[in-house]
Amino acid sequence: MNPQNEPILPVPGIRLGSAAAGIKYADRNDLVVMELAEGSRCAAVFTRNAFCAAPVTVAREHLAATAPRYLLINSGNANAGTGDEGLRAARESCKALAAARACAIDQILPFSTGVIGEPLPVDRIAVAVPDALTALHPDGWEAAARAIMTTDTVPKLASRRFTAGGRECVVTGMAKGSGMIRPDMATMLAYVATDAAVAPALLHSCLKQAVAPSFNSITVDGDTSTNDACVLVATGAAGGPEIIDWESSDYQALTAAVAEVCLALARAIVKDGEGATKLVEVHVEGATDGEEARRVAYTIAHSPLVKTALFASDPNWGRILAAVGRAGIEGLDIRAVELWLDDVCIVRNGGRDPGYAEEAGQRVMGQDELTIRVLLGRGAAATTVLTCDLSYDYVRINAEYRT
Amino acid sequence: MNPQNEPILPVPGIRLGSAAAGIKYADRNDLVVMELAEGSRCAAVFTRNAFCAAPVTVAREHLAATAPRYLLINSGNANAGTGDEGLRAARESCKALAAARACAIDQILPFSTGVIGEPLPVDRIAVAVPDALTALHPDGWEAAARAIMTTDTVPKLASRRFTAGGRECVVTGMAKGSGMIRPDMATMLAYVATDAAVAPALLHSCLKQAVAPSFNSITVDGDTSTNDACVLVATGAAGGPEIIDWESSDYQALTAAVAEVCLALARAIVKDGEGATKLVEVHVEGATDGEEARRVAYTIAHSPLVKTALFASDPNWGRILAAVGRAGIEGLDIRAVELWLDDVCIVRNGGRDPGYAEEAGQRVMGQDELTIRVLLGRGAAATTVLTCDLSYDYVRINAEYRT
Repeated sequence: MNPQNEPILPVPGIRLGSAAAGIKYADRNDLVVMELAEGSRCAAVFTRNAFCAAPVTVAREHLAATAPRYLLINSGNANAGTGDEGLRAARESCKALAAARACAIDQILPFSTGVIGEPLPVDRIAVAVPDALTALHPDGWEAAARAIMTTDTVPKLASRRFTAGGRECVVTGMAKGSGMIRPDMATMLAYVATDAAVAPALLHSCLKQAVAPSFNSITVDGDTSTNDACVLVATGAAGGPEIIDWESSDYQALTAAVAEVCLALARAIVKDGEGATKLVEVHVEGATDGEEARRVAYTIAHSPLVKTALFASDPNWGRILAAVGRAGIEGLDIRAVELWLDDVCIVRNGGRDPGYAEEAGQRVMGQDELTIRVLLGRGAAATTVLTCDLSYDYVRINAEYRT
Repeated sequence: MNPQNEPILPVPGIRLGSAAAGIKYADRNDLVVMELAEGSRCAAVFTRNAFCAAPVTVAREHLAATAPRYLLINSGNANAGTGDEGLRAARESCKALAAARACAIDQILPFSTGVIGEPLPVDRIAVAVPDALTALHPDGWEAAARAIMTTDTVPKLASRRFTAGGRECVVTGMAKGSGMIRPDMATMLAYVATDAAVAPALLHSCLKQAVAPSFNSITVDGDTSTNDACVLVATGAAGGPEIIDWESSDYQALTAAVAEVCLALARAIVKDGEGATKLVEVHVEGATDGEEARRVAYTIAHSPLVKTALFASDPNWGRILAAVGRAGIEGLDIRAVELWLDDVCIVRNGGRDPGYAEEAGQRVMGQDELTIRVLLGRGAAATTVLTCDLSYDYVRINAEYRT
């Protein structure tokens, strides 16, 4: 069980071990080794931030070279903005694990999260690797989800069952992330595994499909991380035939289950957004195309004025309209725009709906979860972005993070 | 004198009167009438927010129809998001002033600033107009600058002298603005006047030139207002010949003086940004073109993580790098990027400069004013954007604004 009160299912073929390397945090685990059974397939997506971290570069290289057997994850230090020294440190940490397991260095994918610009203390990682290996266990998911946390206040885990090849299969995932969240490919570290057997091309496609409406549709503060990574592993340990047909019901069942796990993790990240008190769905309909819908949704979701109004539970809808108006939509007819908070219509024909009463808006704004719905009246495209409010605690957490 | 300790010079041909209409604030003036001498020329730029306020629409119409004699400005209510009723209210408020001065309605330009989405109380404005007219005086600048404030904590004024047509001339301006500041044409209400005589085309060009590096290069929170407007008036009362030659030294002297006044006002707005404790120049050099330079500068200036680090006086430069990296610059070579805080080089060749010591960064971050300088190493374009930090008080001010 985890804080979302869902049972977390072990994934046959996957073992996880956590240990304390003392990288930044005292008295807690900060190092995770995830072991993938021989023959596992692995797909991954990474940050598009040009200043991507050293482990992202190394993980990409290793993934291109061979099939991974281990993921090595540390929290407390991002190993980003560290230049050549950082690349060397990422490879050295892989080497420490490779030596202990007698495998090749490029069979290990490194991941880091934490403060940017500090040298990675490879020695401490090397010392803690044997402890993590000793702790390897199929039920290691929750301990691992805790070990990869930074400013997160809760571990984030999700599991689903599905049937493929006539076998009962599982998908389980964990993620971390709370600030610097505006994933541009995946989020700050998410690891999802299934025991189904999946052909590489289908596995990658399944991941991309799952990531688009989940990790790639959330934002806490608009700051895309340097270390974003999402990995999907298929161990094949369930024993069924490999899923190779894009049109098969097996592939569809897999895709649905992976998408559900990713969405549950993405929601958990926003709900645990730094200082967040509210989970907000920004839903934009009637756009000319998806790009336009996303531009409007993110402009609302990133507006500090909208986010502070959400924190205050103040139905200050003028700020939402102002955000729509500055989203850069060419030729927007403001008379066609509608604005709703949940089921309450606030704006119609470019002005306040005659039937709107402040109490109704106030009621929705007081909720822990709510939907801001904007109808543009231009076309058929729609999108949903998940975000949270901007509170005193966001400022506190980020003003105090290093000190 | 004003809080910036500069003498504020009256502009021959301009009189200002303030009064209390009780629109939102008690015990203070919230209505301003600015009278322009017969024959004055007027240029203006307005917000590009699609949800522009009713007074913006009406002011644009009136300006196109004839030469204005009066500006009518209220604070406490933006008259934005108010639909047809808002347009009617804006015209009604002009009518009240037109009746009192026996001029045409379209000789009056209306301006509003304050909360969005509330009906404008025209009756209260009409009642207070005679008081404002009684108060008309050439030295009314400072009282007017105070009357147009909303969340501003100080009035914003600036004056310069220049010589044109062999005459000593003056430029004086006032502005308001503190939050919802990311002007996309001009800022939230700025009024600049000179007693030089200037041909209309030159006056407009002078305004556009002055606005680009001042009001159009500042951001507090990235939220473009619905009511942004900047007006430049030339009364001609100095008595010199009209400036008609683009190449003349008179035009250059005028342009320089207006640009200086606008920049002083723009800096004052950012310095008084909601909750701001620091004034920060983000300077980007070595960009392929101006658009690229601006994209990088605004990504840094809008990053909540950079802004909270500034508030904390924490030289957490990894957040600045991460912002550069996510600015969407195609093919950015991170090894060519340099990052400086004032005269302290922090990043070179994609990693921490070997000579960098945390104390040096700490010293700069502790200052009230500082420059973040990013060299992209791609080309010759550069830009400077002014911004401020993100503090607890920004959240408090915007969580409490309506309640």
